[in-house]
Parts: sequence; C-alpha cells; structure tokens
Amino acid sequence: MTEKKKDVLQPVDDEVRRLAKTLVRTARFAALATLEADGAPAVSRIGVATAMDGRTGFLISGLSGHFANLARDPRASVLVGEPGKGDPLAHPRLTLIGKARRLGDGGERQHLKARYLMRHPKSALYADFADFAFWLFEPERASLNGGFGKAYALTPADLLTDLRAAAGLAEMEAGAVEHMNADHADAVDRMAAKAGGEKTGWRLSSLDPEGIDLSRGDHAARLWFPRPLASASDLRPALIGLSKA
Amino acid sequence: MTEKKKDVLQPVDDEVRRLAKTLVRTARFAALATLEADGAPAVSRIGVATAMDGRTGFLISGLSGHFANLARDPRASVLVGEPGKGDPLAHPRLTLIGKARRLGDGGERQHLKARYLMRHPKSALYADFADFAFWLFEPERASLNGGFGKAYALTPADLLTDLRAAAGLAEMEAGAVEHMNADHADAVDRMAAKAGGEKTGWRLSSLDPEGIDLSRGDHAARLWFPRPLASASDLRPALIGLSKA
Repeated sequence: MTEKKKDVLQPVDDEVRRLAKTLVRTARFAALATLEADGAPAVSRIGVATAMDGRTGFLISGLSGHFANLARDPRASVLVGEPGKGDPLAHPRLTLIGKARRLGDGGERQHLKARYLMRHPKSALYADFADFAFWLFEPERASLNGGFGKAYALTPADLLTDLRAAAGLAEMEAGAVEHMNADHADAVDRMAAKAGGEKTGWRLSSLDPEGIDLSRGDHAARLWFPRPLASASDLRPALIGLSKA
Repeated sequence: MTEKKKDVLQPVDDEVRRLAKTLVRTARFAALATLEADGAPAVSRIGVATAMDGRTGFLISGLSGHFANLARDPRASVLVGEPGKGDPLAHPRLTLIGKARRLGDGGERQHLKARYLMRHPKSALYADFADFAFWLFEPERASLNGGFGKAYALTPADLLTDLRAAAGLAEMEAGAVEHMNADHADAVDRMAAKAGGEKTGWRLSSLDPEGIDLSRGDHAARLWFPRPLASASDLRPALIGLSKA
C-alpha cells in the first residue's frame, strides 16, 4: 500500500490516528495475508485481540496453512475494519504490513492470552492445545482507507500506544476489568453508550493507557480517555471519569 | 493453504463444492492479497461480482496500492465468506489462490461490467473513469474452511461453472434479469425465500447455468437449478420451476 501514489494521500492527524487505532482495537477478526512456499500470497481469516500496546495478536493451529506459511516466512499483512450497511467500500478499513512472531511460553504470551480470552472466551477450550500457538503481529507500515478518496499512510508510531508512562498497568488490568464487570455493570453500559454502543449488557474487555475496549456479544466499542494515563495510578480516576453520565 | 497437512483435509463432495460456489456467488466484497514491490504480502478490500463461470471480478482504481501491485505481479489471493453472528471462526470461508488479469476493452470486460453493475449499481458512477479498471481473478487452487476441523482443498474444476452446454446464455442474461425484476417481483421473492432469504423486495441480480443470484440491499442469496441447464433455451422453464411455491 506504500505504492499508493503520493498525491492521493491525505495528511495524518490525531483524528486519523484515532480512527486507525479504533479499527484495530475493536476488531474481533481480521484477514491475514501470508506467503505460500512459492511466494504467492494467500489470505485467510483469523480471530484477533490486541496486546496492550495495540499490536494485533492471534491464535492459530499448527495444522493450518497460514501457520506453516508464517513459520517459513514471517512477512504478513492484516486487514481490519468490517463493512456495515450499504456500500462496503464506503466503510473505513486498515491494511497493516509487517511481520508475525510466534510467542513462546513467557510473559508476552501470558499477556496476549489473557486479553485474547477476554475477547474470545470460547477459545479457552483450545488455547492451550499443543498444536495451537499465539502470534504477535508487528506492523511496519499501514494504509488507512477511510472511504472514497480518503487514503492515509501510517507508521507504527501512529498506530501503537506508548506504555512507558503507565508502567504496572498490565498487572492491574485483569483485576480492574473483573471488578468493573462484576460490580459496576451500569457504569460499563454508560461508558458503552458514550462510545456509540446500543442497548445494555456491555462488558469491559480490555484497557490500555489511551482508553478502554467494550464488548456485547458480536459488538465492540472503543472509548478514549480525555488524555493518556500519566501513570498506572491514574486508571481508577480515569474510569470514574468515563463512567459519569 | 495447500500447505495444510493432508491428514486434516476432508474429502470434497458435491455439497462442499456447492458451499464453496455459494460463498463466491454471494460475496459483495472480499479481501484481496497482493504482493508489494519487496515481495511482502498486502491485504485490502475490494468489491466483487462473478463472471458467469464463477470467476471473481473486481473494479479497482489505478491510484490504489493493490492495482500497482497486480500490475507488477499478477499473483493474488481472494478471501470470501463473511462471519455472521457468534464465533467468527465458526463461519465458512474460502481462500482462492491464483492470478488476476486486467480486462481491456472487449467482450470480457463488457460481460463482467454488466454483472458488476447489477450487483453494485452505485459503481456506475465511476466504472468508466479512465483510472479505474475491471480485473478478473483466475483461481488455481483453493482452501475451504467450513469451521473447526472442516478443511477442504479445491481445484478450479470444483469452483467454476461449465458454460459450454448453455451457449448464448450470457446474451440472454440482462434481458431475463430485467424481465423477472420488472414483471415477476412476487416470483423473485418466492425464489429468495427458497434460498433462505427473509422478507420481500428481493431482486434477481445474475444467473448462470447452475442457478441464480438474488440480492436485497446488503443481503445476497443463491438458488440452484435442480440440474444445470442443458441449453440456453432451458432457462425459461428452469426459472418458472424455481418460482413455483
């Protein structure tokens, strides 16, 4: 997508970055392009969840074609942003290009697995099967198509969330998510409404220094903090702020 | 996807072929994987329609990244089959691997354009712009994932429709489609209901020797003739047969 002629590219501002991040953070699934043994491209579907910094993670079977392809050549591309009603090409979508890395046992896998299971609870049935593995996709460049005539080239800095200020947030995440869902269901629904989510029964599914991800069945929504957390201890007041009517 | 280990592949029968063809015939849009200049894969979204034989056609802008990629290297992959409600990986999807070919002025483009516009009426606004072109994707191999543990390897013969017996059908198509929609709206709704389509207001959008494609806004349905047409003159009785309650 970096091949796109420069004169059709629009300037990237914070609104564009937020749209791109929202597409990544709200995706339940994505199209994954990998390379076959002969170098031909192949595109398949994967379930996805983000690591806290916004990188896309996925869980795939070692018996699958895309797993074999990535094990041979890590170069990959991920498409997120599903069409809603009407013209499918009028809906924004984001092409990420980069490399995928298989996660071994350790903290990175544990972190991604926890967030993936919050997003895809049923995958707990097979997440630990010996032939399944978590992979993390590292974007190197990206192209956002916001609809007819609205194309943007983005960098990893445009897409990822800086975690340095909020050290310790990852360790607080699971507890905060569980507490909000168990004890503050009304507040979670109010947050979802602010993010454009309809009806009630929303659950908080993950959080990061820039905002929170909400889900209700097949629906997902993203709500942003007014400003990124300056430290992990800002989480509680930030959640209280978002939950106010 | 041909890399998938043989022991997880299921045998291909007529039901599997029909599922694969239905995914192709009912797709409004698809994910397209192409190769960047450096050989990396890139995946983007395209609007699609089929040629009468079931090959996937699409209309893209010369200013786009995927257009430049295909002009350089025709190798491509197409993913069709969108998730509905619930687990996105429980829904069938089809990965096609092959080559895309730009259509010059002539009969092939005219045929594809007519079917594309029946599927995407709004694209009439830009289909003839000088920087847009129709492309036709020629599948060389395919992988159908029918849900957990249901994987099939398919060939072009499994996916494409033999047009030889029904010579002349392409010339009859536009007139038959217009006639059915203008004069037999009730019959079209009955056909859609047989194909699982809900509500009324369906339109016939295309036909081929094996069946018909129906659409209602964002919804699409595929209905099969009891047996493939043995000649173009079988079309009328076959449509009458499908329209019976």
